[in-house]
Amino acid sequence: MSFFKKEINFLNLKEISDICAINLDSKYKNKKIFNTKNLHEATENDLTFFSDSKYINQAKKTKAKACITSYNLSEALPSTTIPLISNIPLINFYKIVNKFYPDASLDDENIFNKKNKNIYAGKNCLIDYRSKVGDKTKIGNNVIIKKNVSIGKSCIIGSNVIIENALIGDNVLIKSGTLIGQIGFGFKFINGERLRFPHLGRVVIENSVQIGSYCTIDRGSLGDTVIGEFSSLDNQIQIAHNVKIGNYCMIAAQCGIAGSTIVGNNVLIGGQSGISGHLKIGNNVKIGGKSGVTSNLEDGASVMGYPAVSIREFAKMRNSYEKKRN
Amino acid sequence: MSFFKKEINFLNLKEISDICAINLDSKYKNKKIFNTKNLHEATENDLTFFSDSKYINQAKKTKAKACITSYNLSEALPSTTIPLISNIPLINFYKIVNKFYPDASLDDENIFNKKNKNIYAGKNCLIDYRSKVGDKTKIGNNVIIKKNVSIGKSCIIGSNVIIENALIGDNVLIKSGTLIGQIGFGFKFINGERLRFPHLGRVVIENSVQIGSYCTIDRGSLGDTVIGEFSSLDNQIQIAHNVKIGNYCMIAAQCGIAGSTIVGNNVLIGGQSGISGHLKIGNNVKIGGKSGVTSNLEDGASVMGYPAVSIREFAKMRNSYEKKRN
Amino acid sequence: MSFFKKEINFLNLKEISDICAINLDSKYKNKKIFNTKNLHEATENDLTFFSDSKYINQAKKTKAKACITSYNLSEALPSTTIPLISNIPLINFYKIVNKFYPDASLDDENIFNKKNKNIYAGKNCLIDYRSKVGDKTKIGNNVIIKKNVSIGKSCIIGSNVIIENALIGDNVLIKSGTLIGQIGFGFKFINGERLRFPHLGRVVIENSVQIGSYCTIDRGSLGDTVIGEFSSLDNQIQIAHNVKIGNYCMIAAQCGIAGSTIVGNNVLIGGQSGISGHLKIGNNVKIGGKSGVTSNLEDGASVMGYPAVSIREFAKMRNSYEKKRN
Repeated sequence: MSFFKKEINFLNLKEISDICAINLDSKYKNKKIFNTKNLHEATENDLTFFSDSKYINQAKKTKAKACITSYNLSEALPSTTIPLISNIPLINFYKIVNKFYPDASLDDENIFNKKNKNIYAGKNCLIDYRSKVGDKTKIGNNVIIKKNVSIGKSCIIGSNVIIENALIGDNVLIKSGTLIGQIGFGFKFINGERLRFPHLGRVVIENSVQIGSYCTIDRGSLGDTVIGEFSSLDNQIQIAHNVKIGNYCMIAAQCGIAGSTIVGNNVLIGGQSGISGHLKIGNNVKIGGKSGVTSNLEDGASVMGYPAVSIREFAKMRNSYEKKRN
Repeated sequence: MSFFKKEINFLNLKEISDICAINLDSKYKNKKIFNTKNLHEATENDLTFFSDSKYINQAKKTKAKACITSYNLSEALPSTTIPLISNIPLINFYKIVNKFYPDASLDDENIFNKKNKNIYAGKNCLIDYRSKVGDKTKIGNNVIIKKNVSIGKSCIIGSNVIIENALIGDNVLIKSGTLIGQIGFGFKFINGERLRFPHLGRVVIENSVQIGSYCTIDRGSLGDTVIGEFSSLDNQIQIAHNVKIGNYCMIAAQCGIAGSTIVGNNVLIGGQSGISGHLKIGNNVKIGGKSGVTSNLEDGASVMGYPAVSIREFAKMRNSYEKKRN
Repeated sequence: MSFFKKEINFLNLKEISDICAINLDSKYKNKKIFNTKNLHEATENDLTFFSDSKYINQAKKTKAKACITSYNLSEALPSTTIPLISNIPLINFYKIVNKFYPDASLDDENIFNKKNKNIYAGKNCLIDYRSKVGDKTKIGNNVIIKKNVSIGKSCIIGSNVIIENALIGDNVLIKSGTLIGQIGFGFKFINGERLRFPHLGRVVIENSVQIGSYCTIDRGSLGDTVIGEFSSLDNQIQIAHNVKIGNYCMIAAQCGIAGSTIVGNNVLIGGQSGISGHLKIGNNVKIGGKSGVTSNLEDGASVMGYPAVSIREFAKMRNSYEKKRN
C-alpha cells in the first residue's frame, strides 16, 4: 500500500511499550509486530490504534494483534487483540509508525532525471526514471515528477506541476502549478519537540478527473487521499491528507477540505467553501458558495451558510432578516 | 477577437440542428453559419444563443442569423433571427462552438522558444517567438510566455509567471507565480461525457494594473476577461472566465470572483471576499473583508457579511446581538 | 535593519517640507534628517510619522528629530520633536522614505548565480552568491534565492520556492511553491498616480518554523514581518507585510492575516480564517475555522464566527437557532 520503505522487520511488544511508556503484561512481551495499520486493515501481524469512539464498529471487528487505545475504549476490542493502554494513543501509535517508516514524514526532492524519450514533455522537466507515464500523456514545462508516481494514458499535465507519491489514472487533466502528494499538515508537540505524524499514504487520482491550478492535494497519513473518477476541481483548492472524494463531484475555486473527510458521489461544492475534518458528506449533496460545513450531511442534502444549514433554512433566515429591514 | 483558429469555414443549419438534435423547419436547412458569437456581438453570418431572460434586451436587438434558445424565450427574438428551439440551449451552442474551434478548450504547452535578444528576461524563461514584449519590460526567472500574448512597455513580470492568450498594457506589474489566460472551469456532463465549454476568449490587462502573486486569471469563454486600468490585485486571488473589473479597483488577498461578473470602477474589496457569478457590481462600491456577495450592487453601495448586506445593517445586527449578550 | 541601499545621505527639513507641500517654520529649514524610522525606533537624526492615536504612547516618548503628523495629534509629541503638520501624514512620510530608498518598493529579479559547491541543492536552482545557506540545509529544485537572504542550518526547502529579503533560522521547513519576502500590497493614488508604500523591511523566520506550500509571506514596510519559533503554517496562507506571529502557533490552510497584526504565542487558527489588519491577538488564543476576526483578542480567548465571537456565544446562537427550527 505504501511507497515508503519499511526500515525494520519487526518490533516486539516490550520494545513498543518501552517507546510509548506503556505498562505491558509481561506475558505479551515477546509478541512480534511486523507492521502498523488502520483498525479495519490490520491483520494478526499488525499494531493498530483506537482513539475515537466513532470507529467502535471497526474496533469490534479488528484483526490486529495489538491496539494502542484508552482504558475506556479498550473494552470494545475483541479478545484476540492485545490492548495497550495509553492516554495519548494516536501519538504513541505515530511514534511506532515513524520507527517502522522513518522517511515517510518528509518529502524527497532527489530526482534521477533520465527522461524516457517516449514521454511527451515540455522544457526543463525533471522526471524520475522510476516513475511511469502512460501513452499519449502530455506534460508541460518545468514539471517535476518524482519516483513514486504512476500516471496513466492520455493525461494532460500543465506547467510547474509537482507530483510525488501518487497513482494517477487515464484521461486526467492537471492544470499548471498544482502540487500532488506532499506531506500533510500533521504533528503534535511532545515536551517541546515536534512529533511529525507519518505520511505513508498516497494520492490516488482516478480516471477522467480534472484539477485546476495551484491546488494542493496532500498524501494520506496511513491510508490514501482519493479523488474519484470524473470529479472536477477548480483553482486554488486545498485537499488535506486522507480526504476521499467520490465520483462526478464538482468543487469550485478556493475550497478547502480538512483531513480525513469523506465526500460522496455527485457532490457540488460552491467556491470558497470549507469542510471540517473527519466528516462524512453523502451522495448528491449540494453545498452553497462560501459555506462552512461542520457536521455530517445525509444523501441529497442542500446546505449553505456558516455553520452550514439547509438551503431552505438559510433562505428563511435571510427572508426574516429582510422583512425586519423593511 | 479570438486567438484560436477557426477550423471550418461554415456549417449550414441542417448540420447544426443534427448535431444538437433540434427540429428544424426544412426551409432553413441550407442557411450558412460562419461563426458563433454572443447575442450583442453576432452579425447576420453568426449563430448565437439566448438562455437567460436577464439578457432579453440584447435578444430583442440581436442581428444573429440564428439563435439557439428555449421555446418561451424565443418570442423575444427579432423576425430576422431564426430560432432553434432546445431544452439545453447553452450546451448545444457550446457543441457548435467546439466544432468551429476544436482547440480552444485546452491549453497549449507547446513553445517555440526563440528568445528575442532585445527582451530583458531572467534565467530559464520560455518565451514564444510569436509573442510580443514591449520596450523596457523586465521579466523575471522561469517565466513562460506563450504564443498568443502581447505585453506592453515598462512592465515588470516576476518569476514563475505563466501568461497565455492575453493582451497586457503598459506599466503593468505582475508578481511572481501568477497565471494568466488559462482555460476556465466550465463543462457539463452529457450522458456521462464531459462537454467542455469553449474558452475562445482572452485576458485583457489594461495599463498600470498591478497583480499580486499566485493569482489565477482565467481566459474568457466567448468574450474576454478584463482588468481595467490602474486596478490592483493582492495575492492568491481567483478571477474566473469573463469577469470584467473596472478601473482603479483594489482587491485584497484571497478574494474570488465567479464567472461573468462585472465590477465597476473604483471598487474596494476586502480580503477573502467572494462574489457570485453573473452579477453586476456598480461604481464606487465598498465590500468588507470576508463578505459573500450574492446579488447586484448599486453604485456607491457599502456592504459586508454573508450574504452581504449594507454596512449599516451589518453593524445593526452586530450591535443588537451584542446588546442581547450583555 | 534594512537590506536596501539608502541612496542619499540626508535631506534638510526645507527639502522635506517642499516635497510634501508642508508649511515649515523657517528656523528649522536647515535641520538635517539622515533616515526614516517608526515612532519607537527613531533617533535624533531621524524623521518619523504619527497618524493614528492608537500609537499615542509611542508618540509621547519618540526621540525623532521631526515627525509628520496631523494638527490634532501633534500635541502629543515631546518638545524635542519638530512637528510637520499635514493632512496626509502617512503618504507624505512614504514620499520621503521612497526618496531615501528608491529601490525598496520593487522586487529585484537580478541574480548572480554562482552556486556555492557546498550548498546541497537540486536542479535548476538560482542561488545568488551573496546569500548565505547554512550547513546541512537541503534545497529542492527550481528554487530562487536572492541576494538579501540568510538561511540557517538543517533547513529543508522544497521546490519552486522563492526567497528574498529574509532571515531564516535553523531547522526550518518550507514546502514547495512558497514565496517569502516580496513587496506587500500597499499604495495610495495621489492625483491619479500610484504612490507605492516603501517595503524596506524583511521577513524573519525563526528557528524550527514549518511553512506549507503556496504561502505568500510579504516583507515588512518599515519594520519586519516575523514568524516565531516552532510556529507552523499549512498550505495557501497569506501573511501580509509587518505581521508578527509568536512562537508555537498553528495556522491551518488558506488563512489570511492582514497587515501589521500581531499574534501572540501558542495561538491556534482554524482553516480559511481571516484576521483584519492592525490587531493584537493575545497568547493561547483559539480561533475556529473560517472565522473573521475584526477586533483585538485577550490572552486565552476562544472565538469563532464572522465577526468572531466567543465560542460559547457562537454555540448559543447556533443552539437557539436550532431550537427555533424544531
